[in-house]
Amino acid sequence: MELVKGVKKSETLELADLLKEEVKGQTVKVNGAVHTIRDMGTVAFVILRKRGGLVQCVYEKGLSGFDLKDVKEAATAEVTGIVAESEKAPHGIEIRLRGIRILSEPAAPMPLPIAKWKLNTSLEAKLNYRPVSLRNLRERARFRIQEGLVRGFRDFLYGEGFTEIHTPKIGAKSAEGGANLFRLDYFHRPAILQQSPQFYKQMMVGVFDRVFETAPVFRAEKHNTKRHLNEYTSLDFEMGYIEGFEDVMAMETGYLQYTMKLLEEEYADEIRILGIELPKTEDIPAVRFDEIKKLVSQEYGRKIRSPYDLEPEEEVLISRYAKEKWDADFVFVTHYPSRKRPFYAMDDPEDPTYTLSFDLLFRGMEITTGGQRIHDYESLLAKMEQRGMTEEGMEQYLSTFKYGMPPHGGLGIGLERLTMKLTGDDNVRETTLFPRDMSRLEP
Amino acid sequence: MELVKGVKKSETLELADLLKEEVKGQTVKVNGAVHTIRDMGTVAFVILRKRGGLVQCVYEKGLSGFDLKDVKEAATAEVTGIVAESEKAPHGIEIRLRGIRILSEPAAPMPLPIAKWKLNTSLEAKLNYRPVSLRNLRERARFRIQEGLVRGFRDFLYGEGFTEIHTPKIGAKSAEGGANLFRLDYFHRPAILQQSPQFYKQMMVGVFDRVFETAPVFRAEKHNTKRHLNEYTSLDFEMGYIEGFEDVMAMETGYLQYTMKLLEEEYADEIRILGIELPKTEDIPAVRFDEIKKLVSQEYGRKIRSPYDLEPEEEVLISRYAKEKWDADFVFVTHYPSRKRPFYAMDDPEDPTYTLSFDLLFRGMEITTGGQRIHDYESLLAKMEQRGMTEEGMEQYLSTFKYGMPPHGGLGIGLERLTMKLTGDDNVRETTLFPRDMSRLEP
Repeated sequence: MELVKGVKKSETLELADLLKEEVKGQTVKVNGAVHTIRDMGTVAFVILRKRGGLVQCVYEKGLSGFDLKDVKEAATAEVTGIVAESEKAPHGIEIRLRGIRILSEPAAPMPLPIAKWKLNTSLEAKLNYRPVSLRNLRERARFRIQEGLVRGFRDFLYGEGFTEIHTPKIGAKSAEGGANLFRLDYFHRPAILQQSPQFYKQMMVGVFDRVFETAPVFRAEKHNTKRHLNEYTSLDFEMGYIEGFEDVMAMETGYLQYTMKLLEEEYADEIRILGIELPKTEDIPAVRFDEIKKLVSQEYGRKIRSPYDLEPEEEVLISRYAKEKWDADFVFVTHYPSRKRPFYAMDDPEDPTYTLSFDLLFRGMEITTGGQRIHDYESLLAKMEQRGMTEEGMEQYLSTFKYGMPPHGGLGIGLERLTMKLTGDDNVRETTLFPRDMSRLEP
Repeated sequence: MELVKGVKKSETLELADLLKEEVKGQTVKVNGAVHTIRDMGTVAFVILRKRGGLVQCVYEKGLSGFDLKDVKEAATAEVTGIVAESEKAPHGIEIRLRGIRILSEPAAPMPLPIAKWKLNTSLEAKLNYRPVSLRNLRERARFRIQEGLVRGFRDFLYGEGFTEIHTPKIGAKSAEGGANLFRLDYFHRPAILQQSPQFYKQMMVGVFDRVFETAPVFRAEKHNTKRHLNEYTSLDFEMGYIEGFEDVMAMETGYLQYTMKLLEEEYADEIRILGIELPKTEDIPAVRFDEIKKLVSQEYGRKIRSPYDLEPEEEVLISRYAKEKWDADFVFVTHYPSRKRPFYAMDDPEDPTYTLSFDLLFRGMEITTGGQRIHDYESLLAKMEQRGMTEEGMEQYLSTFKYGMPPHGGLGIGLERLTMKLTGDDNVRETTLFPRDMSRLEP
């Protein structure tokens, strides 16, 4: 029997350690993947890729104690060397090599030039070679930003008294949904993959008052566009005891404020690498659906073709309008038409053809749908009847309301879209590790 | 156009606010669900359930400004009243009611006595009425503990340089797996639900060095036991540049140390409510599979029937042994037989019939499987050939190794099982919000 005592301090240094004043001139150990080798004859630069960034190592023939020929690009190694200042090196330091231990070697040369600053490869090739293309520094930086967006969501909501939940992704077929559901065989019973945690998070508002979930959702939509995925990560929250859907928008604004600050502080390297301009979040304009449709139509001379929904081009124009008139990167569009919202959306008592709901647009694209929900049992039944829906398969959801529920509302944020608009990409697949679309099921 | 400025300070107080010295004697507003009403004639206790706990409100006929008959159990309300000390009330305070605003009302009486301290109802009934049964304070407390376990996992790993990833749950059918996969139709192509993020997290070690994911996994296993679910939440990590699988065990020990402290500090109420005794995590014994099997067999006189695996009863005895001999709640069992581990497990060079792998047992049950993985391309191919596996459908996974990978290892923790052993429950369904098993697909 031996005792495991927890994490020991590592003998090898990470990038942040190497930048400390006290290690200058010291002999250190560093591990990493050989990102690239530039051989200049008597001297060579061996660039190590670490999770924190690149580390320049200098090979000096005769001094370094090994043969450069034994080091291959894409090998992983632990090097020994002396830390020295170097203006031209990444982060201003380099390691003068005095030894190397090869940890692993590749079996084939790289199929993509991952050491280039910009990987000028087709999206198709990048996705086909995902485990390799992401070793490029700019490619992987997107997913560090994505981490920050999820981390900020959770940390902010913990602070606001929300409880994290984990709801099932496999479910029984329900009366809601329909065409957009993936179907599977569940021990000889028909089942579906959840297209959203909506019903579950509402049920849990009756338990924890405020809940959130960050998890995959599944949509069998036959869309093949730059903004649709058939599986994506949804940042969902639902909160009870609201006075109106404005409380939900305020919470989302708070999330964005908190998270942009977090990115600025903790993800500064990635922001620099990707050249991200962080959006303004001090305040976010909110404007009615019918109003902004008219304003944009007048301003840009575009005819309103679809009175009950926003076309993608209108989303672009609304964002343009918000930027030009209000210097805003985000804009809430409120009071969507009832006929385009699900049955559980609360209609505006002042005009029930509209709902107490909103979308959030960010740089030309919808990234959030939210609003207040119906919390009264009889009203919910009435709305369902009005839509010709049956209660079949919804008994548990409905019973939640039968036994009392506070006024509540919530939202869902598409993580990949939010990342995409932040990083300035034009295809949601760029900000999805392993995208799933109508034609892509691998890797 | 209006401006949304972020979260405003709420007019209503939460439990933590009510406990502050400065609000004693003040008139405050508090909202919550009417958990129970005890009518004593001229005085009545209206207990509000809030996310932070229960708040005792005192109704005094004539003084409170409304008729008690207008308040129903399971209604939600915003009350106005004066904060007063009260030794017998929960948390030592009560609110002398001076007004009430009913926010919502139930449509039917409660089907379960949720206000009781222990909900003496069958598991079946609790699961059938999940949105209601979880309103019981003890029932919901389990899921706050569960939140802490996930939160600790992420926070600890962020601090250790891990990057969070989101990998797809729908995938193409691969050569691995087989019988335990749920199958679905993906736009007329056969697809499966991932039984683990194993391949993806390994691929991402080549990108971020250290990665983790907290997400659902799907197992079509035909088990109907107290410890199996067909969908569960897996806490997964994978780390590169390890010296051995001991580094993985050390990281898990670090996680447990961090998280038990987090629970102690941030989830003290729930620990008290559930009477949880936090396990010791200063050090965790690790003992070889073949050794502990023999030790336990000798100590408790139980014949070894299955030499290559642990039977559930043996897990119980190993934990008993660890408790009795080493005063340990956790115990690592190392060097599992190669034939019972997947192809990617690294065999022990000293005896390839065993692997450099481990399970972690906690109070009689396996909650983690982990180990070092094969990182060398040729070795991986050789192992696959030895097992008679084809490369079909594994091309992308294998290419990761072709282009170089550091030595690495990782683990997966079953969240619901970890929660269950911590809360002292005897069925994993108790610690799953909406369990999925062979017969349960709803709610």
